Amino acid sequence: MGLNDRFLNACCGQPVDRTPVWFMRQAGRYMPEYRAIRAQHSLLEICAQPDLAAEVTLQPVRTLGVDAAILFADILLPLIPMGLDLEFAAGEGPVIHNPVRTAAEVAALRPVQMEQSLANVLETVRLVRRELDGQVPLIGFAGAPFTLACYLIEGGSSRNFLRAKRLMYADPATWHTLLDKLALVVADYLAAQARAGAQALQLFDSWVGTLSPEDYEEYVLPHSRAVLGRLAATGVPVIHFGTDTATLLPLMAQAGGDVIGLDWRTPLDWGWEQVGADRAVQGNLDPVALFAPRPELERRVQRVLDQAGGRPGHIFNLGHGILPETPVENVKAVVELVHEYSVGVREAT
Amino acid sequence: MGLNDRFLNACCGQPVDRTPVWFMRQAGRYMPEYRAIRAQHSLLEICAQPDLAAEVTLQPVRTLGVDAAILFADILLPLIPMGLDLEFAAGEGPVIHNPVRTAAEVAALRPVQMEQSLANVLETVRLVRRELDGQVPLIGFAGAPFTLACYLIEGGSSRNFLRAKRLMYADPATWHTLLDKLALVVADYLAAQARAGAQALQLFDSWVGTLSPEDYEEYVLPHSRAVLGRLAATGVPVIHFGTDTATLLPLMAQAGGDVIGLDWRTPLDWGWEQVGADRAVQGNLDPVALFAPRPELERRVQRVLDQAGGRPGHIFNLGHGILPETPVENVKAVVELVHEYSVGVREAT
Repeated sequence: MGLNDRFLNACCGQPVDRTPVWFMRQAGRYMPEYRAIRAQHSLLEICAQPDLAAEVTLQPVRTLGVDAAILFADILLPLIPMGLDLEFAAGEGPVIHNPVRTAAEVAALRPVQMEQSLANVLETVRLVRRELDGQVPLIGFAGAPFTLACYLIEGGSSRNFLRAKRLMYADPATWHTLLDKLALVVADYLAAQARAGAQALQLFDSWVGTLSPEDYEEYVLPHSRAVLGRLAATGVPVIHFGTDTATLLPLMAQAGGDVIGLDWRTPLDWGWEQVGADRAVQGNLDPVALFAPRPELERRVQRVLDQAGGRPGHIFNLGHGILPETPVENVKAVVELVHEYSVGVREAT
Repeated sequence: MGLNDRFLNACCGQPVDRTPVWFMRQAGRYMPEYRAIRAQHSLLEICAQPDLAAEVTLQPVRTLGVDAAILFADILLPLIPMGLDLEFAAGEGPVIHNPVRTAAEVAALRPVQMEQSLANVLETVRLVRRELDGQVPLIGFAGAPFTLACYLIEGGSSRNFLRAKRLMYADPATWHTLLDKLALVVADYLAAQARAGAQALQLFDSWVGTLSPEDYEEYVLPHSRAVLGRLAATGVPVIHFGTDTATLLPLMAQAGGDVIGLDWRTPLDWGWEQVGADRAVQGNLDPVALFAPRPELERRVQRVLDQAGGRPGHIFNLGHGILPETPVENVKAVVELVHEYSVGVREAT
């Protein structure tokens, strides 16, 4: 099998034979093959061992028939060499034992030498590329400065982002210093992934939807723009993703990205208007739709494809990551359905 | 002091001397007076004792100088006589020990005789009206059918609403039967509050923002419309509120409500366009702005008022409830600032 170009062509708004499809968190707990490895190794162990991380990255490519692989890594990895004391407490998600909340703590964050401190991740990229052997492209990724800053400041997940917003409002200079530092690390990290062989990159700003457009513009946009601007030199397409972003989409497009990710709260056609016809879009099935009975799931997949209307520049995905209890057979069925049905939509338009 | 008509006039889109202001969850843990009562009584005890519930309802009116009182009650109270086994676990929020997930469990939900089963709440309404003595109006409230259904099905709070959406997608008949039942109870409950003396009503659909517009229209709108339609006969204005609703606002306005609540993700002027000029709007300061230093807080309050532009039909509020650690003095400052600044906006326009 030769190189599957669907995904990369769609990123650039080029026509494709079928709509490409991949899933955020396509490597993960819903897959028995993944759980078998997790039974033996912690999340951070898998990330640290290129053979394991590569294996986990490749599992969904083999099982699902998706049009792209995405690097298996934790979003917080590049923060560890900055000085982060990270732990994954059982069933609780990440806990950061030394959160960053003051100007002094921001100043103490260390710069990161990618090839040295994140050598394992870059080795995983190289390994996956070799094993994929051109079958499908590999997507690298990183968290966006805002979302990483929230983790750093809150010390883990958060509901209201009280501490992060408080720093933003009370001490904007420290906030911007922190985001400058994060933008530098994120851009270096993504550029290093591209050099190691990643053929596309996704910037995850998963939590940005907690902000008003005014706050996004003032406290986040310059930093996301700095990252996305730097990445233009890599020559690989970049996906810019967030959730709860209905009112942020025009600003996210301004910040940059060849492809803008849409969540399911945004009808795909409406969202595409918001980001502009010059961008590709990615999305946007509700991850919970994967739990629906097959006919209902099919109806929902078809609706997304109908809203895209066969226009070049649509990548099918969920509006957020696959949930842990998702039935694998439904994920497979979506891949098949997207490939089959999108031929029809293309012919009809 | 005579009747303060600002709030009720603004609900009806009538001109007012100053923009009225109140806060969702203005009675609550951020207030020392409230914490003093909570130290002696559980949440459900306060709700069950009209003298305590009335006292808690009146505390913010005395302390803050807001333009309306809102009944102190828990959103889940009307579900208890339906058969709900509810507990408030320490620090965890509500836990429902007998969640409702099957057609049989939906069928087993009992109808509710308001004057009998919710006599305490209605007595609180009467007591608060007497004690307010026309000083400011009293707002009654209830959860909307969707948000209550989520609590019932999930058995408490939820992140992804997996079980609720799964029922919706897999067994729409049972879903609609459940929401029919809830709509009946909610409408009866709100109508009973109005008969007992509530001068306005708010329907809280706090969690509705987890839905796409298509799902809202199919699974929720008919039931919210049923409630809001029934309430027209009460003759009191109704506020229809949700969060994360940027793409749902036109449909929420279709469902009904004299006033549509906007959260902070939606610029107030943009949100007002979405719901239409025939509606009043309520909102929409980010609750976290109350933690900002005073000048920043003032800038944010003024921005909301500037976006409203002095047009009749704006009620100042947060985009969601007051957070437990909020500094009381900042809440007071917002009331003063809204009253002072809105005179200026009105004169300038």
